[in-house]
This record gives sequence, C-alpha cells and structure tokens, in this order.
Amino acid sequence: MGKEITSRSEDYSQWYIDLVKKADLAENSDVRGCMVIKPYGYSIWESMQQGLDKMFKATGHVNAYFPLFIPKSFLAKEASHVEGFAKECAIVTHYRLKNAEDGSGIIVDPDAKLEEELIVRPTSETVIWNSYKKWIQSYRDLPLLINQWANVVRWEMRTRLFLRTAEFLWQEGHTAHATAQEAEKETLLMLDTYADFAENYMAMPVVKGRKSEGEKFPGAVDTYCIEALMQDGKALQAGTSHFLGQNFAKAFDVQFTGKDGKLDYVWGTSWGASTRLIGGLIMAHSDDDGLIIPPKLAPIHVVIVPIFKSEEELARITEKVDVIASQLRKKGFSVKFDNRDTHKPGFKFAEYELKGVPVRLAIGPRDLENGTIEMARRDTKEKKVVSSDQVVDLIPPLLDEIQANIYQKALKFRESKTTKVDTYVDFKKILEEKGGFILAHWDGSKETEAAIKDETKATIRCIPLDAPEEDGKCIYSGKPSKRRVLFARAY
Amino acid sequence: MGKEITSRSEDYSQWYIDLVKKADLAENSDVRGCMVIKPYGYSIWESMQQGLDKMFKATGHVNAYFPLFIPKSFLAKEASHVEGFAKECAIVTHYRLKNAEDGSGIIVDPDAKLEEELIVRPTSETVIWNSYKKWIQSYRDLPLLINQWANVVRWEMRTRLFLRTAEFLWQEGHTAHATAQEAEKETLLMLDTYADFAENYMAMPVVKGRKSEGEKFPGAVDTYCIEALMQDGKALQAGTSHFLGQNFAKAFDVQFTGKDGKLDYVWGTSWGASTRLIGGLIMAHSDDDGLIIPPKLAPIHVVIVPIFKSEEELARITEKVDVIASQLRKKGFSVKFDNRDTHKPGFKFAEYELKGVPVRLAIGPRDLENGTIEMARRDTKEKKVVSSDQVVDLIPPLLDEIQANIYQKALKFRESKTTKVDTYVDFKKILEEKGGFILAHWDGSKETEAAIKDETKATIRCIPLDAPEEDGKCIYSGKPSKRRVLFARAY
Repeated sequence: MGKEITSRSEDYSQWYIDLVKKADLAENSDVRGCMVIKPYGYSIWESMQQGLDKMFKATGHVNAYFPLFIPKSFLAKEASHVEGFAKECAIVTHYRLKNAEDGSGIIVDPDAKLEEELIVRPTSETVIWNSYKKWIQSYRDLPLLINQWANVVRWEMRTRLFLRTAEFLWQEGHTAHATAQEAEKETLLMLDTYADFAENYMAMPVVKGRKSEGEKFPGAVDTYCIEALMQDGKALQAGTSHFLGQNFAKAFDVQFTGKDGKLDYVWGTSWGASTRLIGGLIMAHSDDDGLIIPPKLAPIHVVIVPIFKSEEELARITEKVDVIASQLRKKGFSVKFDNRDTHKPGFKFAEYELKGVPVRLAIGPRDLENGTIEMARRDTKEKKVVSSDQVVDLIPPLLDEIQANIYQKALKFRESKTTKVDTYVDFKKILEEKGGFILAHWDGSKETEAAIKDETKATIRCIPLDAPEEDGKCIYSGKPSKRRVLFARAY
Repeated sequence: MGKEITSRSEDYSQWYIDLVKKADLAENSDVRGCMVIKPYGYSIWESMQQGLDKMFKATGHVNAYFPLFIPKSFLAKEASHVEGFAKECAIVTHYRLKNAEDGSGIIVDPDAKLEEELIVRPTSETVIWNSYKKWIQSYRDLPLLINQWANVVRWEMRTRLFLRTAEFLWQEGHTAHATAQEAEKETLLMLDTYADFAENYMAMPVVKGRKSEGEKFPGAVDTYCIEALMQDGKALQAGTSHFLGQNFAKAFDVQFTGKDGKLDYVWGTSWGASTRLIGGLIMAHSDDDGLIIPPKLAPIHVVIVPIFKSEEELARITEKVDVIASQLRKKGFSVKFDNRDTHKPGFKFAEYELKGVPVRLAIGPRDLENGTIEMARRDTKEKKVVSSDQVVDLIPPLLDEIQANIYQKALKFRESKTTKVDTYVDFKKILEEKGGFILAHWDGSKETEAAIKDETKATIRCIPLDAPEEDGKCIYSGKPSKRRVLFARAY
C-alpha cells in the first residue's frame, strides 16, 4: 500500500488525519479553512443524507432553499443570536472586480461597495424567519415543517477535517408552531430522530440530553443534543435540536391569528446535523488498519477480489463472480468487483480494509474447483471459507451482524468509559487517567461550569434526559444538586 | 381560489411570475437578487436532481464537494476565464463583525480584513483544477469524472425567479482526460445526457448545437448547448457542456505522465445545468390555469378529491380511496388524498390544476354506489368516468400518455415556430411577427453576429449539430456560408 497509518496509541489526532487523507475522504484546500470532500468521503455523506432525509420526510417535513447571504441588519434583530453568531463570519462587502489601471491584475472595484454588508450564513434562523413573516398569518398556516440542505460558513481559526472547518455542509430544520407545547414536542421528536440515526445507521450510541445555559444555542430557550464518545475518550456533539420559544418570532414580528381569533407570536424550533458526523463515524469505529463503516452507510457493501495468475483464470473467475454480484445487486447491495491486473490481491485487501468495506470476498481457481469462496468481515477481520452457492444468502445476515456488532462494541466501550464521581479530586484524576464521560453533581451555576472548564478543559456535554433524580452535592462548590450531569473533554 | 393568473396572451412575463408565485414555487427574498425556493418548487428540483444524478452515475461520474470561496488570484490564472467571469461577483473582504463603539449596532471589524479577497464561486473550474493538480500525476489517475451539486453566485442586476438570480443551485461536472479525443467524447456524452433529460424527463424538445465564438464559455475551446423554445417564441439555454482543451490544465499546471512516459497537460471538460431548468419547465408547458408538470418530474402524480356532504360519506369514500391510494403507492406513484373539510371540491380542483398535478381523481357517494370514479388529466383537461376497480390499472398508461402528449405538443409548437429565412428583411419580419427559432445563413464572423444582435436582439443560439451542409449567403453580409445556424431572442 505504501499508506502507513499512525496508530491510535501513538498519536490519536494524527491517526485521524491519516485515515481521512489516506482513505481519500477529504483534504484541506488552498482556500483558508475550507475542505475538499473527495468522492469517497462524499459518498458517505450521500448515504447519510439519504437516511436523514427519509426520516425527516417520514415525520412530515419538506425541503426548501433560502438565500446564502444574510443582510447584516437581520443578524442584529435577535440580541443573543447576534452575540453568539455574528462575530466570526465571512462578510461580502463588494460586488465587482475590475482590471487594475496599472495593469497589475484584477482588483476589487471600490465603486461597487454594497450599501449593506452581506454575511455568508453561519446558520439561517434570521433569513428564514424573515420569510416566515410573509408565510404565516393564521393558525391554518401552521405548523410549518421545513428543512434545508445547505453549506454554511463560520470563520474558525483552527480547523480539522470534517470536525471543524470554515465551510461545512449540513441540514437545518426550521419549524413554526401555534403552541409552545407543540414546538417542544417537535424539538424532542427531532432529537429522537438524530439519536435514531446515530444509533441505527451510524452504529454510534449517544446520550440524549439538554445543554446547560452556558452551552445552549444563541437565541434558543433550550438546546437538546446527542453526545457520542470517541475512542480517545473525548465527546463529540453529533446533532442539536433547539426550542426557540417565541424569540425569533418576536425579533421578526411573526404573529398569527389563532382559532380563538387572538393574535400571538409563533413558536419555533431549529435543528441541525452536519458533515461533522463523518468525523464522528470515523473516530467512533475505525482501527489502525483503516475505516470501519457500518453497512447501513457503506458506499460499497461487498468487494470481490479475484485471485488469478492468467487471463484465462480471471475469465473463469469472472463468470462465477458475475452471477454472485448480480444476485447481490438485485438484493439492493452495492458490490465492487476489483479485477485490476495492475495490483496484487494483498494490496487490494489492504486498500479495502483502509476504506472500511464491510465484507470482502476472495475467489481463486482452487475455489472454483471446490465450489468455495473466502468471506472476510472488516469489523472483526474474521475470515471463513464458505460455499460459493450459498454466499449470496449468507451476506445479508452477515451485514446485519456487522452493523449490530459495531454498535455493541461502541456501546461497551462507552459503558467502560463512563464513570460516576463524587469529588473534584476524583473528577480530575479520572479525566486525566481514563477520560470518557463523567457523571457528576453540579450546582447549576454558570460560574461553577466556567471554573471547571477553565481548570480541566472538561465541559458539561448535557444534562441527560434519563438522569434519575438523586440528591447530591456539587463536586466543585459542594452546593446541593438534584441530578448528575455529563462531563467530558470534547471536540 | 382568489388566485387569478394573468393570461399568456395578455402579458407573458406577468403570467410567468404569477405562476411561480401562486403555485408556491419560489419568491424573491429581501436579500438582493436572491430567491427563496419554496417547498413545492424545491420538490421539483429534487425530482430533477434525482433524474440527473442517476444519469451522471450511470455514465461513471461520482459526486464530490469543493470550496464555496475562490481566492482572487485563482480567477486570474486563466486569462479569458477571468475576463468573462470575475467581474460581477460577490466578494468577501472581511471575516469578523464587532459591536460599534458608539453602541449603534454591529459593524465590520476593520482589523479583520483578509489579505487576499475571496470570491463566492460563480463557477468552480479554477478551484477544482487547483485540486486536480494534486490528484493527477499519471495516466492511471485519468479519467477523473467528478460532479458537484452546489450553489453559485453571479451578481446579476436584473433578476427573474429561476431564470436569472444572483444565487442559484446547479450541478457542475468537471472531468480530466488523457487525450483531446476522450475529452471531446465526454463533452458530447454529457450534451446528450442533458438532451435526454430535457426530452424524456422534462418533455421539452431541444436543439443540440455548438455555440459561436462570441457566445462560448470563457476559458473553453468549444461550448455545446441544448436550446429549448418557450411558448412566447423565445429560446432558453437549458444546459451547456464545454470542451476546455488544455486551458485550465495549463493555467493550473496539471500535467500527467502518459503510458509512453512523456509529460503532457491534461484535457478537460465542464458541464452544468441549474434551477433555471425549472423556469424552462414552466414556460414550455404550462397554461393559463397553472402549471403542467410532466409525470416524470411531478412531485404528486395523482391527487384524489372526495365529494362529500357528511362525515359519514367521507368515511365511506375514505375506505375506498385508501385501497386505491395504497395500490398506486405500491406501484411507485406519489398520491395525495385531499380530505380537507375546509375547502370545497371546486376550490381543490383549481388548486391542483394550478399546481400541475398530472391526474386528478374525484369520487362521491354516487360513485361508490356505481363502482365508478372520475379521472381527469391535467394536460388536456379531459375527464372520464371509469370503473373504480380498474382505475389503478388505468393510471400508469395514462401517465405515460400524458408524458408523451406534453412532449409532442411542445415539439409541434417548436416545429411550427421554426422558420428558414434567406434575407435580413425576412429575418426581422419573422422575428417581430412570429418569433421562435430562425434558421439562417451566417458568415461566421463576430462582427456580423454582434451587428444582428444590436439591431434585432436576436442571438445565435447555436450551430445545430445536425445542420446539413448547404451553400448559402449570410443574411447580413451576403458572404458565403456553409450551413444555417439557429437564431432567436432568448432568456
């Protein structure tokens, strides 16, 4: 292969970057902070999009598209939103270039200055609620259940492929409702949808919870999130769902006439998940040999590698493989037959391990004689020789088993890395020595949250929705607490 | 309905705008030059994306994603490209906002000025060839067959929904090849793909041709296009495919080692189609009552309207409709049952005519007794009463018939509006009195092309690929010409 990957134990960060680059998922572009998502990486995003889009539509949502640019004045309308979002962003100030008079090249035409600057959307609440104002007059116009697939830009100084880039791809749902109750229900429905996707497609167990005041979305009343644990013991926020209350409705004056004839502000939600999920997928499952992609998101389910020495052998193998591949494709699986004669089988084996293809079949002349084929699974690396007539029937249950096994492995890892602590000394010790999720009591104050973050770099990932009520004392201040919250260092 | 549409004969432009707005396809946003694509309009785009994406993948292409921003210096690398593209565009000059010191709001932070301005991509040749430089070393890396679905921005002063907006959605294919011949073949393959899509999905006949020097893409050696005729006799360019020669390879120094060990520049193509297609779809087929959407792109294939006076009647109708709808859905059709009790059947009929749903079924208590259902088609407005037990079998052939009929109608219209002329007097007369496509001889010079455009607003849409060789004289200069070219006024 010539594609050596740094091992996780040696340098986890470098392992991640090696994987992203060597598996041809993405690379840094020469455009500051922006990434290029390469075809193999993009095909994973396409699988994710299809899965999520189907779930959104099954829950009554439709897609639409709103402008890339947000006038500066829109951002200023919701006070806490502008504080949190309007700062580090790409600002369009001019609309024309011209040839420099000294012939030195092209320059920005100073005469083409915009009256009002435009912000490249960091998120679209403002521009969307500005439209909703025109779309909503009566309770009959509600609920409005809209999603958008789009690119957004946040001017990040330190970037890391998929996890943090200036431009990224995402979906953002923006819904409007007649009652607070309905909007809260929607917020939690979409949280459940993200959790369902993370666990059942990505095979990545998540904790559902509510963000603390300090960590919530600027402009939201409540932010809910799903938090996953990566193999280095750090947390990754994998999706957020916000109950916006009437904040954006008030900022953009979106009122409706209720069934009772009374005028009231509309209740809102927004929710998003991004290409960051690809980073989570990689870090949750992959190993030192490459990616491990759960079958439900794998761009290629099965790769077939022929073992041959002559064209005649390849021809005979191809005849058999064509039958197997076509039967698998009929069942809806994506199959690749790698019949290149420029690379040896060992090279190909390593390549598809690197790319995380769930199942590899290998077949040679002796297999043809014996009616056999070698079937290898990527997750456990187990290989066995099976009947080539039965292999088509063996693959669907094997893929299900792989999907389940990847999830179970991640779940067991998370369980082994989730620790309850009752003192700040233990908290710091666990954080340093073991990492992972820490369940601890917190007094609920911003000050304590900030102090712990300053001293340990650990943040409150969420207040888990299933956290039982339990009397305790804050590990930092000793003040009383009613339930444990989830701490971790995070991406 | 209360949704009066201006008739085509009264004011074609207003008819178009009325349709787009009243059928809830799109609207102008408060962001200068940008549109909001509303859910119904976006669902047509989703159908188009699915159709095109399938075709691209069937011809060996894969999707990827490249940065939104293009450093100014990239644009300057290909001389004719920068002339044609770099002028009217959105320019990012700063990356941070801050609170004004006088408390008056947020302002652009003058300290956060970019060293090099970033252009919001008007098209991505430059940023993509900058990546290709890193991806291509050897003939083994070729061909590279990549497509991108993205938003682009061109600062248009006069905008019209779907047809011309500052931001629009599109796909752009960018391929790299080892030989000129292969790249030219790709250029024509994608032209054929667009023509196939236009004719077989959009039911819109197109002329395939080559652009004149004056109309070709800045940076291309040759530009091919498909041209469709709208009902007002104006042409619409519906897709372009460019043979780039080695222009971008030279600008970005993309060389490869051939099988013979020699170094050479790579050959390129690019090709794109955009949300403009939605404008073409509307203007090619629709009538004074609303949209006519070909079944292959219709978000809803069949709408079922119950005729009822009581809840009990609705319940009995629903029972029957559920069976029909579920059988149709099993066959892969999108079915809407509009059981609202807030609107009368006549209102619903008008609404689905406006929205261009290909088939409408209506069923009332008497139909239940008689075992009948009313089946109406949108394109011809024909209605007939059919057996409710047979309706599920009647719909697939009816949808095929509608698809074919819409195409045939548009084809006949185009044929009736395509005129051969041999003198400039006739040319101007036909243009004024009849419009449409005009096939005329042209001397091949830029000067003549420009003069005709200045005097008549007609442009050379293309040199049709199937134009027979024929001796003639240029209608303007009288100089000799070898074949007729296609003139029209255009969108």
